Amino acid sequence: MGLVVQKFGGTSVGSAERIKHVAERVIEEKNRGNDVVVVVSAMGKTTDSLVKLAGEITDTPSKREMDVLLTTGEQITISLLAMALNEKNVEAISFTGWQAGMETEAVHGNARILNIKTERIEEHLMDGKVVIVAGFQGITEGGDITTLGRGGSDTTAVALAAALKADKCDIYTDVTGVYTTDPRYVKEARKLLSISYDEMLELANLGAGVLHPRAVEYAKNYQMPLVVRSSMEQEEGTIIEEEVSMEQNLVVRGVAFEDNITSVTVFGLKNSLTSLSTIFSTLASNHINVDIIIQSLTESQATNLSFSIKDSDLNETVKVLEENKAVLGYDKVASEQGLAKVSIVGSGMISNPGVAADMFKVLAEQDIVIKMVSTSEIKVSTVIEKGNMVKAVETLHDAFDLSNLPVINA
Amino acid sequence: MGLVVQKFGGTSVGSAERIKHVAERVIEEKNRGNDVVVVVSAMGKTTDSLVKLAGEITDTPSKREMDVLLTTGEQITISLLAMALNEKNVEAISFTGWQAGMETEAVHGNARILNIKTERIEEHLMDGKVVIVAGFQGITEGGDITTLGRGGSDTTAVALAAALKADKCDIYTDVTGVYTTDPRYVKEARKLLSISYDEMLELANLGAGVLHPRAVEYAKNYQMPLVVRSSMEQEEGTIIEEEVSMEQNLVVRGVAFEDNITSVTVFGLKNSLTSLSTIFSTLASNHINVDIIIQSLTESQATNLSFSIKDSDLNETVKVLEENKAVLGYDKVASEQGLAKVSIVGSGMISNPGVAADMFKVLAEQDIVIKMVSTSEIKVSTVIEKGNMVKAVETLHDAFDLSNLPVINA
Repeated sequence: MGLVVQKFGGTSVGSAERIKHVAERVIEEKNRGNDVVVVVSAMGKTTDSLVKLAGEITDTPSKREMDVLLTTGEQITISLLAMALNEKNVEAISFTGWQAGMETEAVHGNARILNIKTERIEEHLMDGKVVIVAGFQGITEGGDITTLGRGGSDTTAVALAAALKADKCDIYTDVTGVYTTDPRYVKEARKLLSISYDEMLELANLGAGVLHPRAVEYAKNYQMPLVVRSSMEQEEGTIIEEEVSMEQNLVVRGVAFEDNITSVTVFGLKNSLTSLSTIFSTLASNHINVDIIIQSLTESQATNLSFSIKDSDLNETVKVLEENKAVLGYDKVASEQGLAKVSIVGSGMISNPGVAADMFKVLAEQDIVIKMVSTSEIKVSTVIEKGNMVKAVETLHDAFDLSNLPVINA
Repeated sequence: MGLVVQKFGGTSVGSAERIKHVAERVIEEKNRGNDVVVVVSAMGKTTDSLVKLAGEITDTPSKREMDVLLTTGEQITISLLAMALNEKNVEAISFTGWQAGMETEAVHGNARILNIKTERIEEHLMDGKVVIVAGFQGITEGGDITTLGRGGSDTTAVALAAALKADKCDIYTDVTGVYTTDPRYVKEARKLLSISYDEMLELANLGAGVLHPRAVEYAKNYQMPLVVRSSMEQEEGTIIEEEVSMEQNLVVRGVAFEDNITSVTVFGLKNSLTSLSTIFSTLASNHINVDIIIQSLTESQATNLSFSIKDSDLNETVKVLEENKAVLGYDKVASEQGLAKVSIVGSGMISNPGVAADMFKVLAEQDIVIKMVSTSEIKVSTVIEKGNMVKAVETLHDAFDLSNLPVINA
């Protein structure tokens, strides 16, 4: 007898039919003798419809009211899933975020969970019920409804699993697990049996998109094993945990990529000491996410600074830089759009020097020019031309032996 | 400076456009110098869509989960209306039932309001904000979501008006007021300037459909003046209050009607003393609403009992009666479908004997056979054939001088 938290995303609960199918999945787990807590997202395109409705009213909706609006999405799903379980003679009870005791900070649209009062959930688990909790939502101390932002339902699931001391947290999604790279682009992509939190964090941040980094961080902090698996197919998923037991001989465990990257270069920064922090705090306060940052010295006293952003943030970035030109003290700004980021990720890099060099060599052999480089302990990222992205990924996937991995459940 | 509670129904908030229009109505009231609390229903067909969705999952949804599901409807509207007011630079804040402190008994689908903790609403009114409250919903002591059943949003509005000691409660709807009869059937129907709570209660119970009787009862208990008016047109509405000052010379103030009535007769009840209460408590526990009840003596010791129900309840009624035949001790059951109920209502009847006789005479002159009769202090109801319904209403409307009333705002 254990306790399992299951999370089903928007596609998995996209219709009455699919909700019935999810109920089957819940019952399977229950029949294994486990207590089950289920976290669900809003049905399919519900959130989009609600956002559209708000857009017909105003271009600048209050964040508080957006949270009131959007949280109805999960509230619909929890009640329907409870009904679907009841229909199959399984006792179930639904809880919204506030009913589940999901206390968050008083920030609308992107609140962090502060505490979960699990008494009510535990009481109903003791009664043998399946407890269904609305993902993505919480309540402030003052009784206002909040949402957790992107990846919110994953975070709800992991946080609940941690608070309830669950044995594991299964993230059911529309993919069958975590892959060595995106199988939609690279047919040699292989599903991994396991991956470490840190590797998953790098992959999530790099656009692998399976799990939100916040949820992975939360899981790492609480050492809660996560399993990413398909809600539609009966396939083994990928376990995300601290110590990865399988495939440990792999230096690189995944190749991630992301297009629509722009590089911006600020030439001739006069006072790099203060202007560096000024530039990035100014961009951050304008909600521009900066990814790779490279600072290079010039022959003069001045500094050149390059960083990467999303294509869509370019206009705003240039505007912010120009408005602050006097304070920042630079010569000129240049940018290059239509770039892509390709990264290799693997804990094995820590004990294997020269992995970055291998990557550069592989790309050079394909005549792929590297525009920017950034490295961490377990990751090397390169910015290249978008047109070379898929070729780079395929070549790296082969070169680091990922295409030779056994195929799992497929 | 007063306090006005406004209530807008589903049609009035049926689209983003209409919600913007409602915002204008709220601002007009605010500009008159009043504090405003707004109660709203779910948008147009939202509730129907949610019921349909539940129907795709199960035929027997848990009432608790239906309440979780359906309350999302009003939650969507409150947030959108708050956004629409903000967009017009009016400060507004939305509250769900539980946020508004709407405490109800622990009954799902049809809960009664026990208490309203108005502190939070009052605090925001003090700040000059428009407070928007989700109608139809509440919360139990145990933290479960409840709904108030039919006419729930009207009841929310009246209960809030009473709890906040508002100066009045305006019920905005898709009709321009309370009419002497249904203008969709009788072109001579006239809007009333005022009507008493008791008259409105009789009209509401008789299917006039403008206001739910529960809301009127609540208003009467707290002596809260209600105004029924159009959300679309700038027309004076009808005020519902204790003492009706205008049109007091009218003996009859309205002709109400309702079709799809079935009469059921139970012949030869052996022990009328106990079987009367047994029959109706048995039917009530099977959720069958009985309207008119007539008991007649026969030549033997036994009693014949007739009562009217909705056509749709006939099968269930017959089933219940047959299952309990041994206990009830009767000879046989007969029924007649396809009937209608036509009623005249007016406080003036109390001091004008012979009004019922006038009604029977008018109907007899039209060769309309009266199948059942029921009377109260301020109402006479007759059950006739459905085919005669509109003719009966028109003739009574003329005969009791209602067609001669002045036309208001039209």
